[in-house]
Amino acid sequence: MTLTPEQLEDIQASRANPQATLRAVAPGMEKHLYEAREVLDHGFVRVIDYMGDDSAIVQAARVSYGAGTKHVSNDEGLIRYLMRHWHSTPFEMCELKLHVKLPVFVARQWIRHRTANVNEYSARYSILDREFYIPQPEQLAAQSTVNNQGRGETLQGAEAERVLRLLKDDAGRAYDHYEEMLSQDGQQGLARELARMNLPANVYTQWYWKVDLHNLFHFLRLRADSHAQYEIRVYADAICEMVKDWVPAAYSAFEDYRMGGVNLSAKGVEVLKRKLAGEDVTQESSGMSKGEWRELMAAFE
Amino acid sequence: MTLTPEQLEDIQASRANPQATLRAVAPGMEKHLYEAREVLDHGFVRVIDYMGDDSAIVQAARVSYGAGTKHVSNDEGLIRYLMRHWHSTPFEMCELKLHVKLPVFVARQWIRHRTANVNEYSARYSILDREFYIPQPEQLAAQSTVNNQGRGETLQGAEAERVLRLLKDDAGRAYDHYEEMLSQDGQQGLARELARMNLPANVYTQWYWKVDLHNLFHFLRLRADSHAQYEIRVYADAICEMVKDWVPAAYSAFEDYRMGGVNLSAKGVEVLKRKLAGEDVTQESSGMSKGEWRELMAAFE
Amino acid sequence: MTLTPEQLEDIQASRANPQATLRAVAPGMEKHLYEAREVLDHGFVRVIDYMGDDSAIVQAARVSYGAGTKHVSNDEGLIRYLMRHWHSTPFEMCELKLHVKLPVFVARQWIRHRTANVNEYSARYSILDREFYIPQPEQLAAQSTVNNQGRGETLQGAEAERVLRLLKDDAGRAYDHYEEMLSQDGQQGLARELARMNLPANVYTQWYWKVDLHNLFHFLRLRADSHAQYEIRVYADAICEMVKDWVPAAYSAFEDYRMGGVNLSAKGVEVLKRKLAGEDVTQESSGMSKGEWRELMAAFE
Amino acid sequence: MTLTPEQLEDIQASRANPQATLRAVAPGMEKHLYEAREVLDHGFVRVIDYMGDDSAIVQAARVSYGAGTKHVSNDEGLIRYLMRHWHSTPFEMCELKLHVKLPVFVARQWIRHRTANVNEYSARYSILDREFYIPQPEQLAAQSTVNNQGRGETLQGAEAERVLRLLKDDAGRAYDHYEEMLSQDGQQGLARELARMNLPANVYTQWYWKVDLHNLFHFLRLRADSHAQYEIRVYADAICEMVKDWVPAAYSAFEDYRMGGVNLSAKGVEVLKRKLAGEDVTQESSGMSKGEWRELMAAFE
Repeated sequence: MTLTPEQLEDIQASRANPQATLRAVAPGMEKHLYEAREVLDHGFVRVIDYMGDDSAIVQAARVSYGAGTKHVSNDEGLIRYLMRHWHSTPFEMCELKLHVKLPVFVARQWIRHRTANVNEYSARYSILDREFYIPQPEQLAAQSTVNNQGRGETLQGAEAERVLRLLKDDAGRAYDHYEEMLSQDGQQGLARELARMNLPANVYTQWYWKVDLHNLFHFLRLRADSHAQYEIRVYADAICEMVKDWVPAAYSAFEDYRMGGVNLSAKGVEVLKRKLAGEDVTQESSGMSKGEWRELMAAFE
Repeated sequence: MTLTPEQLEDIQASRANPQATLRAVAPGMEKHLYEAREVLDHGFVRVIDYMGDDSAIVQAARVSYGAGTKHVSNDEGLIRYLMRHWHSTPFEMCELKLHVKLPVFVARQWIRHRTANVNEYSARYSILDREFYIPQPEQLAAQSTVNNQGRGETLQGAEAERVLRLLKDDAGRAYDHYEEMLSQDGQQGLARELARMNLPANVYTQWYWKVDLHNLFHFLRLRADSHAQYEIRVYADAICEMVKDWVPAAYSAFEDYRMGGVNLSAKGVEVLKRKLAGEDVTQESSGMSKGEWRELMAAFE
Repeated sequence: MTLTPEQLEDIQASRANPQATLRAVAPGMEKHLYEAREVLDHGFVRVIDYMGDDSAIVQAARVSYGAGTKHVSNDEGLIRYLMRHWHSTPFEMCELKLHVKLPVFVARQWIRHRTANVNEYSARYSILDREFYIPQPEQLAAQSTVNNQGRGETLQGAEAERVLRLLKDDAGRAYDHYEEMLSQDGQQGLARELARMNLPANVYTQWYWKVDLHNLFHFLRLRADSHAQYEIRVYADAICEMVKDWVPAAYSAFEDYRMGGVNLSAKGVEVLKRKLAGEDVTQESSGMSKGEWRELMAAFE
Repeated sequence: MTLTPEQLEDIQASRANPQATLRAVAPGMEKHLYEAREVLDHGFVRVIDYMGDDSAIVQAARVSYGAGTKHVSNDEGLIRYLMRHWHSTPFEMCELKLHVKLPVFVARQWIRHRTANVNEYSARYSILDREFYIPQPEQLAAQSTVNNQGRGETLQGAEAERVLRLLKDDAGRAYDHYEEMLSQDGQQGLARELARMNLPANVYTQWYWKVDLHNLFHFLRLRADSHAQYEIRVYADAICEMVKDWVPAAYSAFEDYRMGGVNLSAKGVEVLKRKLAGEDVTQESSGMSKGEWRELMAAFE
């Protein structure tokens, strides 16, 4: 278990004390509040706060479109319409605040999503814990031979063992030396802002991360995708489970139009039209590059 | 009164139905929820939702600074420290959603603050109401003779009357013609997206506006300032009253360090040092331009 | 012609004086520099500055992907790959600065694109010119009966004449009164920040607008789209012509994947798969709403 | 020297080939273009492109303020006025693109400035070089005893030697194992996206970073400050030298109003007023906390 006894106590105290509010309440999300959902070997995601629900999206859309939205019969239909037509601002009216514990190399990918608020644990101020991500054996994959940024088969036998041993030993030794450099026992002790540079990218950090629902969906589309690196995808998957309970109608539209959707180019539309008309189109006759053709066929086979 | 009976009923219904939540609750803000605070002749501001409170700021800061914050004795002291040292990210952990009704020329200034989420009433979809901002007589000011973007003395007598009459007549006539062009009675009726171009900049629009506390403070610093145009300042003032009840410690630090604070240039610091050392510094001997000198003297007289 | 003699002289002076630079130069864009391309009756777009070219996109991508990009045979292929896979950051490495003169109601739509830099003419400081957008007769359209935010047939005869007359008369009168209120001839003169509220939304304003290529493409996708309001679409179209000459490979990929592309939902993919397999799918058997079905059929008929 | 022969050749080729442009050219910046300025032991900063100059700031301001700016006698005076009054948008009209090579722990601080465009070298696609930041002996500082995030005295003798040895050995070993895990010699070879997690935070990465001048100044104010960590401050200092040559008037205003300036709270203003009036104010009679008082006294002693 990744949470300390103090943190667990803190969670229980927070959950024991419901208060009255006049704000929109999402019952599906209340059950997630403060609870840490474990991810990887020492990581977690937990909801610290949220603003809005499915109705808040509809309410904001109705401010914009006024009487113009009346013909859409119900909230779910309106939310699907907004998602389909990339009317993103109503989704920005919901906000989520998460507490995430994650390896530094995952944090480095994550932070590239700029439209969010972040407070990260500072290793200039404080000492990092001795916690490192060590992959499960089934996640120890070889470099993909077809995809420059992907994984291939799982490593086996002696190679797998050697990799695991190297990762563990190097992390442990790096942390021992981190502590040794920091120590003020019989020496001055190196500044924390310098000592941290000895720690590898699988050390865990943590942060509060706050984002609106539109930008969260953008994050999830990229990071819950099958091409995302496994170690960030498991965080995205965990967040998806929470979002599904928070804003079920919006999440369902997101799944249909974004996660399960396909972007066709003009050339792709042309190929499908020709095929629908019974023509036998090949890559050569499509005008597409091999890569584009392969991706199109993969989507429709 | 600016709210329709339907809106008032809606507010009462929302306020009649408190629900239990495990989230942070700010009692001072609950009392504002949904209540419309009137601004100008037809405008209002009302809180639709909020996330976080003073404790949420502290909580986020403690994630960042870990043990490093322990020496600050209390929450208020830590919040003041954060504000003084421009540690802005913990303030971003609070979020506010407002419903605002405001004249278009005010909306045009307001929207320049880009880090916010907005859903505005769309005059392409829907028809605007016959509501225009007409200044109170004491707000009918002459062009300032010293400030290119400011107001001077209040207009008097016949000139004031003429201005009021022109504003009222032109707005009324523009709206009559707007309706006449839109009408489908015996004619096709002009498209709404075209007809709206006939309406003057004092017509009222409305929007949902959502912003984090750090960016809200930036907005308030500029717009609650005495140099801001009166018509946006009254909105900023109304929001200040709400924020004060929502996050009293953060608001108090904001008042001290931002609203009541002064930015000195290196030259300004030098002048004050010389004065503190008993020297009689003049504009000529200060190395400052006349404008800079005047502003410095104004701050310390 | 919308430019003053002073502005024309200024343009000619700027264009007469090429200087040497070591930066990337896009010959296709140099020919546009400073030249005003007329839009609507008094508006224009002109390029003030640009940064980067197609090669700058490739160069940035090769920093990110290093040896990983070597297998893509050429720059155009790499740019297409980046566009297809939503790798947006290399496109952010190009930047464009425009000077735009446009009606206020167009500016209000435009400014909703937040990721851009703007300096707009301030009617608090300065007096607006007597210039208003009056639609050409063929643009005077009725409200669409099928689309809440669209136009239908062109107005005819007496109705068209009446609308044109109302728009012209109201604008002219509003401007007369604006000047009358501002006048300091025998009176104090109303403050500019107040007098401007009398001007209708078809008055022209102007601004410098600076944006990166990724966000520009996002703007163009929405605003050069056939569903965009005509009065902003003509600006987007004018900008498209410039971008095409500036970054021809990126623009070509944008046309194929964004402007001419189609986003399919998971349901849409399913329908097409069934049709490709020879099944006769109807709206009822598709699981789609009527709106979704209609849009899907429109894309593939 | 940190650049490879290929990179040096590339720089020379780029610099050998000036082209004609009609855009604004900043002669002071042309001399920096492409040249790598060395920072730390393996890092560098070099200018890849820029947009605008001091005149571009003035030009944009004059669009906004129109005739209202005529009374400011010259460009430098106007730039100082804009900086003093926080009119930030004209500074956003200049843009800078840098190529930076920097240790990962510096990159992690840097990326927190969100309003910028970034393309970073991807260790998923490509293999990182064997280059690590090892501090110079005079930078090996002990933890500060008064500042939780600062450095104290320089480490001496055996402690300094031990720290240096640990940093070098751990980095070298981590890289050996990184290569060993990646190797496809007689084994499958671990995926790059996994192997990278073994590398410590002092490994070098590189990126293209593009930012507007307003946000660059914000970055420089925080990172060229004496409280910033030395390892990022040296990058900020290097950039300051470039900016000074690029936009000398803006940089001079920045130095006076931001770098050398002081923000006083309302309480601080009150204290100075009392002191200027001859009163002997103490911390106790100031109403300030000890920390605030100490900082105020430090600024004016």
